[in-house]
Amino acid sequence: MASEFQQRLFNEQEQELLFEIIKSRRDVRGNRFLEKEIEETIIHKIIEAGLHGPSVGFSQPWEFVIIKDQKTKAAIKASFNTENTKGANQFKEDKQEKYTNLKLEGIEETPLNIAVFYTPKDTPVLGQTSMPNMGRYSVVCAIQNMWLMARSLNIGMGWVSILDPEKVKTILNAPKENELIGYLCFGYTDMFYNKPELELKKWDKRKPLSEVIFEEKY
Amino acid sequence: MASEFQQRLFNEQEQELLFEIIKSRRDVRGNRFLEKEIEETIIHKIIEAGLHGPSVGFSQPWEFVIIKDQKTKAAIKASFNTENTKGANQFKEDKQEKYTNLKLEGIEETPLNIAVFYTPKDTPVLGQTSMPNMGRYSVVCAIQNMWLMARSLNIGMGWVSILDPEKVKTILNAPKENELIGYLCFGYTDMFYNKPELELKKWDKRKPLSEVIFEEKY
Repeated sequence: MASEFQQRLFNEQEQELLFEIIKSRRDVRGNRFLEKEIEETIIHKIIEAGLHGPSVGFSQPWEFVIIKDQKTKAAIKASFNTENTKGANQFKEDKQEKYTNLKLEGIEETPLNIAVFYTPKDTPVLGQTSMPNMGRYSVVCAIQNMWLMARSLNIGMGWVSILDPEKVKTILNAPKENELIGYLCFGYTDMFYNKPELELKKWDKRKPLSEVIFEEKY
Repeated sequence: MASEFQQRLFNEQEQELLFEIIKSRRDVRGNRFLEKEIEETIIHKIIEAGLHGPSVGFSQPWEFVIIKDQKTKAAIKASFNTENTKGANQFKEDKQEKYTNLKLEGIEETPLNIAVFYTPKDTPVLGQTSMPNMGRYSVVCAIQNMWLMARSLNIGMGWVSILDPEKVKTILNAPKENELIGYLCFGYTDMFYNKPELELKKWDKRKPLSEVIFEEKY
């Protein structure tokens, strides 16, 4: 039985380091990536961090497509362009102008893209019977692990969500039942911002704690 | 401009430590929690890790309800009991027997529960115009940060998803438009398993890499 347990306790210095990595993680966009390749062992480390994410009912409902081909990236970028124009049009005046001045992806500038899919099961999943989104949320937890791992490896990651998921599926020949959760771009970068880019560029303000934390009840 | 940048590069030892925390994180259930209180400063550290999560369009679409009252926990537990019976009934024979033998939550055994909600905006959100789930996924990234931070603090966390989200909202007097993403239970624990509990108890097998990683396309 003893072998089923881990004895590892983390100390204050280790806790601080984790917090530092968490605080240093940024969404990195195309104007900051370097051309340097990402080695296979490093790609493996990033995906392995994802595979150690939690999954509801141990369902592991994730699939990862590793993309390096510039032709594939160009096709994905075309979907971004279409959706980005549609997206910009939803904002008014000043905000629309600000939107169009932002660089929001690094699909073609990064050496590595990873598309992460949710693969639903056709049998019940423990823990997902009352909250059907739980499988999708497991995949998101995997992505957050990958994001933190990449940051610790001094690699920038950007999550591109301004895409038509169905177009991405067609481009990648994905099974019909799969659902795109995240399209991720990875590359070494010349710097990381010290705050979220949209905070620095005054797109929106940070919410005060009193607005997001409640005691016992609303 | 220089102050907008961070110069922090992490080294191999720091990368390994993050990976160790990621690998050591477990979903902890009720039969493993200790009665020891969690100090306010520690609760704050866990939530702060969440608040440094990524959010689509810097929307910070999260709200956290900190629950310590045993009466509230008992009401939540009643919803779990109802949903757990319904859930178990979806499985057949052997699997159903196995299901009912599992302890799947620690709502009342833990000193601290945190309910995490998604609060939709009534105006467009940058990055969410093509993939409407992105706000929910931001909240999940915050939860994964909290989970890792808790593990580094040697605190176990269990994510309880066998709940009726509408019942939970009623119990916590949550605004109608809010959506429950995760109901989390935190407590010090006498041990962490070295593998997912459902893997150790042979509920399901770990998938081989060849089943989840694809090169370029499916």
